[in-house]
Amino acid sequence: MHVLVAGANGKIGQNIVKQLHNSDEHTVKAMVRKEEQAEELKKKGINAVIANLEGRKEAIRKAAKGCDAVIFTAGSGGSTGSDKTLLVDLDGAVKTIEAAGEAGADRFIMVSALQANNRDNWNEKIRHYYVAKHYADRVLQASGLNYTIVRPGGLLNDPGTGKVIASENLTERGSVPREDVATTVVSSLTEENTYKRAFDLVSGEMEIGEALKKV
Amino acid sequence: MHVLVAGANGKIGQNIVKQLHNSDEHTVKAMVRKEEQAEELKKKGINAVIANLEGRKEAIRKAAKGCDAVIFTAGSGGSTGSDKTLLVDLDGAVKTIEAAGEAGADRFIMVSALQANNRDNWNEKIRHYYVAKHYADRVLQASGLNYTIVRPGGLLNDPGTGKVIASENLTERGSVPREDVATTVVSSLTEENTYKRAFDLVSGEMEIGEALKKV
Repeated sequence: MHVLVAGANGKIGQNIVKQLHNSDEHTVKAMVRKEEQAEELKKKGINAVIANLEGRKEAIRKAAKGCDAVIFTAGSGGSTGSDKTLLVDLDGAVKTIEAAGEAGADRFIMVSALQANNRDNWNEKIRHYYVAKHYADRVLQASGLNYTIVRPGGLLNDPGTGKVIASENLTERGSVPREDVATTVVSSLTEENTYKRAFDLVSGEMEIGEALKKV
Repeated sequence: MHVLVAGANGKIGQNIVKQLHNSDEHTVKAMVRKEEQAEELKKKGINAVIANLEGRKEAIRKAAKGCDAVIFTAGSGGSTGSDKTLLVDLDGAVKTIEAAGEAGADRFIMVSALQANNRDNWNEKIRHYYVAKHYADRVLQASGLNYTIVRPGGLLNDPGTGKVIASENLTERGSVPREDVATTVVSSLTEENTYKRAFDLVSGEMEIGEALKKV
């Protein structure tokens, strides 16, 4: 697949881009906000495109043109103001979903947050972040695209273990290395068992490939 | 109709409650956040119920029980932090939409904002507010409820004139007294031409009842 990565400069995004770039199966186009980020990527031989998630949808649609799949892993995270959360994590995500549909990129993978689907289990301290993720996911599910929503627990910078728990409803908190999130996202691209599915993800005992077959 | 008003203590909300209370056609239940607000209403002989839009959906469902219609006119407005905007204007609104459906209150009227449907025309200064209104409206339109979305322009405290322009797409900015918004909402309750419709609203030359028939 030819895959557009929105949020390619984030920690998970960088890992996804690297995996796709090294893959025999896929090719990657990295979407970033700044010229210098694009230059850095191009130096490494990676196809990069500039588009701002707070800008007009047309630029994103142009970026998605010719791609088979879009991965959305951009995000202001829980630490920025909720203004940015609304504009990037919600409206930026939905512009990307709409742009993917309009550009004919039918496969869409969203990096969401553990239990974003379940209002009762939102982390009180970053409740506004969960609201944004929740509604972006809802729009994706109603979009008609062939989606997968990956909802990781607390994100760690530790090296990946390659082993996870992936389940539609993990009510216990947990964490997972960003590298394993990236591997899960890339593995999901062609794993049909994840098509039109959403699942929570934390570190566990099962190989990622196997876990995705058993979600 | 027996009508629940969410946001009954707001300026538009108070006016809607007054109109419904004085109406021969409708009865009203005013939903407010604080005990003292409920007491004030009860002193005036108005049925009041306490539920917090930032709290659990169950309380709102209980409030909506037995009602035929729900009017959502709560809102943090453009002036509060975007944290509250996300939690009240978006998630609070959607909890109310879901609660109405679950309680069997099939008719739902949303007070939205001029051109909230049209990303290109959002007011840059309160863009986060438009994001919240936009997605709440989208959820309502997909809810299966018999909705009307009223999208007023700049809100004035001037006395109502009873005359408006109501149209599916008003691209020019305009303003409208809160009293006329309230009258439009109350008149829409039983005006079948507004069922499953969304429209912009500013001050104009046409009587409200007539304008609603011609949206």
